[in-house]
Amino acid sequence: MSKGVTPQSQDYAKWYTDVVQKAELADYSPVKGCMVIRPYGYAIWENIQSVLDRMFKDTGHVNAYFPMLIPESFLKKEADHVEGFAPELAVVTHGGGKKLEEPLVIRPTSETIIWSMYKKWINSYRDLPILINQWANVVRWEMRTRMFLRTTEFLWQEGHTAHATGDEAVEEALKMIDVYRTFAENYMAVPVIVGKKTENEKFAGAVDTYTIEAMMGDKRALQSGTSHYLGQNFAKAFDVMFQNEKNETEYVYASSWGVSTRLVGALIMAHGDDKGLILPPKLAPYQVVIVPIYRDEATKSAVTDYVDKITRSLGSLNVRFHVDTRETLSPGYKFNDWEMKGVPLRVEAGPRDVANDKLVVVRRDTGEKTLQSRESFLESVGGLLDTIQDSMYRNRLAFRDDNTQDISSYDELKAATADGGFARAYWDGSGDDERTIQEETKATIRCIPFGQDGSEGTCFYTGRKTSRQVIIAKAY
Amino acid sequence: MSKGVTPQSQDYAKWYTDVVQKAELADYSPVKGCMVIRPYGYAIWENIQSVLDRMFKDTGHVNAYFPMLIPESFLKKEADHVEGFAPELAVVTHGGGKKLEEPLVIRPTSETIIWSMYKKWINSYRDLPILINQWANVVRWEMRTRMFLRTTEFLWQEGHTAHATGDEAVEEALKMIDVYRTFAENYMAVPVIVGKKTENEKFAGAVDTYTIEAMMGDKRALQSGTSHYLGQNFAKAFDVMFQNEKNETEYVYASSWGVSTRLVGALIMAHGDDKGLILPPKLAPYQVVIVPIYRDEATKSAVTDYVDKITRSLGSLNVRFHVDTRETLSPGYKFNDWEMKGVPLRVEAGPRDVANDKLVVVRRDTGEKTLQSRESFLESVGGLLDTIQDSMYRNRLAFRDDNTQDISSYDELKAATADGGFARAYWDGSGDDERTIQEETKATIRCIPFGQDGSEGTCFYTGRKTSRQVIIAKAY
Repeated sequence: MSKGVTPQSQDYAKWYTDVVQKAELADYSPVKGCMVIRPYGYAIWENIQSVLDRMFKDTGHVNAYFPMLIPESFLKKEADHVEGFAPELAVVTHGGGKKLEEPLVIRPTSETIIWSMYKKWINSYRDLPILINQWANVVRWEMRTRMFLRTTEFLWQEGHTAHATGDEAVEEALKMIDVYRTFAENYMAVPVIVGKKTENEKFAGAVDTYTIEAMMGDKRALQSGTSHYLGQNFAKAFDVMFQNEKNETEYVYASSWGVSTRLVGALIMAHGDDKGLILPPKLAPYQVVIVPIYRDEATKSAVTDYVDKITRSLGSLNVRFHVDTRETLSPGYKFNDWEMKGVPLRVEAGPRDVANDKLVVVRRDTGEKTLQSRESFLESVGGLLDTIQDSMYRNRLAFRDDNTQDISSYDELKAATADGGFARAYWDGSGDDERTIQEETKATIRCIPFGQDGSEGTCFYTGRKTSRQVIIAKAY
Repeated sequence: MSKGVTPQSQDYAKWYTDVVQKAELADYSPVKGCMVIRPYGYAIWENIQSVLDRMFKDTGHVNAYFPMLIPESFLKKEADHVEGFAPELAVVTHGGGKKLEEPLVIRPTSETIIWSMYKKWINSYRDLPILINQWANVVRWEMRTRMFLRTTEFLWQEGHTAHATGDEAVEEALKMIDVYRTFAENYMAVPVIVGKKTENEKFAGAVDTYTIEAMMGDKRALQSGTSHYLGQNFAKAFDVMFQNEKNETEYVYASSWGVSTRLVGALIMAHGDDKGLILPPKLAPYQVVIVPIYRDEATKSAVTDYVDKITRSLGSLNVRFHVDTRETLSPGYKFNDWEMKGVPLRVEAGPRDVANDKLVVVRRDTGEKTLQSRESFLESVGGLLDTIQDSMYRNRLAFRDDNTQDISSYDELKAATADGGFARAYWDGSGDDERTIQEETKATIRCIPFGQDGSEGTCFYTGRKTSRQVIIAKAY
């Protein structure tokens, strides 16, 4: 139930958890670090899943399901992988009342179990490529959790592909980070910077990690999706070889890529305001909420008939709508509630509207309120939802641009990122330099953006000439 | 790859696992009792999910997600529940490198974690009903596993509803077993007997369990879905009370209901034959497979163009199709392969067919082969798929009727169920009698069917008069 949230300016972190709870997206559970995704939050995730699943299938992928429990020894087969994930593992030691001979870990990610199966399925180049995705839950034991952004258990999809050449695996990894970019921009209405992670920041077991980085409302970065070129690392760990067209035997090349329920957190923080959530129409569980307003049974009946007429039209227009018929709540309460839940359009219909064949339409993103004829509303609602979607994206793009600075000294970096904000800078430092900067400023290199123009500049930290630019920011 | 399976008559269990593997539905994993669901098997599960999810939503349910890890102490709060599930638990004792203060179990079912949350969400009758479903993985440590039918980890949906009255919760449980019946009959083409479980066989923690029981190809029963009226058992265990309309405080009433990836096993065993799987059109990943046949580049090009014309039409008819363009395999091999995979219709198109604007159409269920004009095929394909769906159902209904006997003595029971088969009998025995019969015959009371006519007869075991009839069979 919505009674207002802590203002962003007062405490952004508190604002976030207030919105998560008051919009009934998720709730704390009795299990440390785990959340319950409530129906309204889950409906957003279902919309995310449905669009992404279609995009994956349109790019030739199929879904499958691999066991959640992985023999502990599997994790150890890839040295970097185990180093990265060992501290985060949940371990099953007992099953069916007995101590297990070998402990099983709950998957923190599925490269190991999947590549142990690929060994069975791949013999020849004719068996390649394998383009499999999995929708699943994973567990990573986190010390500090925050709902949707970092929880011990979370839901995600993980693509795991196998290829005959490294080029093809790189191409796949790049194709999928572009699918994520398209999804973030066109569906989430969140602009992202696409680039490569530094060696320090790449996935444990990857040759290269690609990422999409979004700016949240507090100007901090959120890594929103990653795609990895894994080279032959997992093929070597699990001895997966194939016979190529020249009858030579070689190790298989791999990619993996994933996004998670964290994307719900990205939606909240990219768009939300002090009234709560603002959802992009393409992912909103309800695109239009209708609040019928009446005082007595006579006006109730007229308003209800009028609303029925509207919803029949909305249904045939494939607009996702909801009519708030709750009897014990005032219209004003309902307005606040649906603003908290971020529904893109609110329609109010009272006795006077019925008499005039009109209705009041309120945009969640701008607050703009108009009195429209029913006919013109129904004619324009599809276009209006597109306008909102587009406007939300452009709004976030302008916000990011306003809060991105080119910096050329360490002091400038500190100033540019202290209270959030993206810094763009030439960079030629080492991994150790990177760690020092992180310790001193809490900011990290988010990525080396794609599409650099190759112009040369001076590294803000080492003073050396370089043509490589990076984005640096504090991040979630 | 399909090279034929063990005949059913020779070894039904071996036939089953052969089909699972050769149709590439699933594969053994390195984790004891866990299987990998391969893309083709997972596509069947996705179709099952998609239909059921729509049916759940059409009956007013919403999806949510609850943590997979449950504090061990939660299971112990409901006495029958823990007794039923304790022997099957997988226990996480370590997380993040440390021993946990309280072990966590991986959900074997989610009543306990969900009712611990319902306590937070329910105060008044206005908060009721709660109609939540969850799609999830669960783990039950099984000694003897069989792919899809009984695996340590499996995928399922579990509905968990909360109500203000017992009548309403019973109504919900009955509504959902009827949804399962409808799904089994109309989508899986599998007739089921709907009824109530005996006290011995009911869910651990339920007041009543309802079930749908299907007959497999070896005449054994498969429990294919269950729905439970839980009374106030879990509300009492988790202290979930509400204020009713009279301002009195009382415990909330509950139902839960679920079906799992076991349904894929039901499809295999209900319909399959010695050539492999036979899938009902409504759930088949591909309803039509097209095998182009050519000898050289010239005929290839003509056949390919012709097939393109057919697939454009199939696409606009919303028929799910696949064209088998694999270059290194013979048509005969492909025919066997798609028969193994159970695709309802196979279409063969060769140079002569192109010349005559015809094609060869083969039904998987009957083997019937016809030469049809392209036009008449495209006009009739939708109807033909419906005919196959219907015919598969009627075939299975006749098979079940042929293998169901009314019995009136213990000897008759033994004869009727020894090699599979359903026995229908009057029953007035005790739970101990039921256990004795199970020990001596391996057959169990599958259910007390709904819709009994109330006529009186003699219990085959106790000789007492009773009006209650039951179905007894060996079961999976």
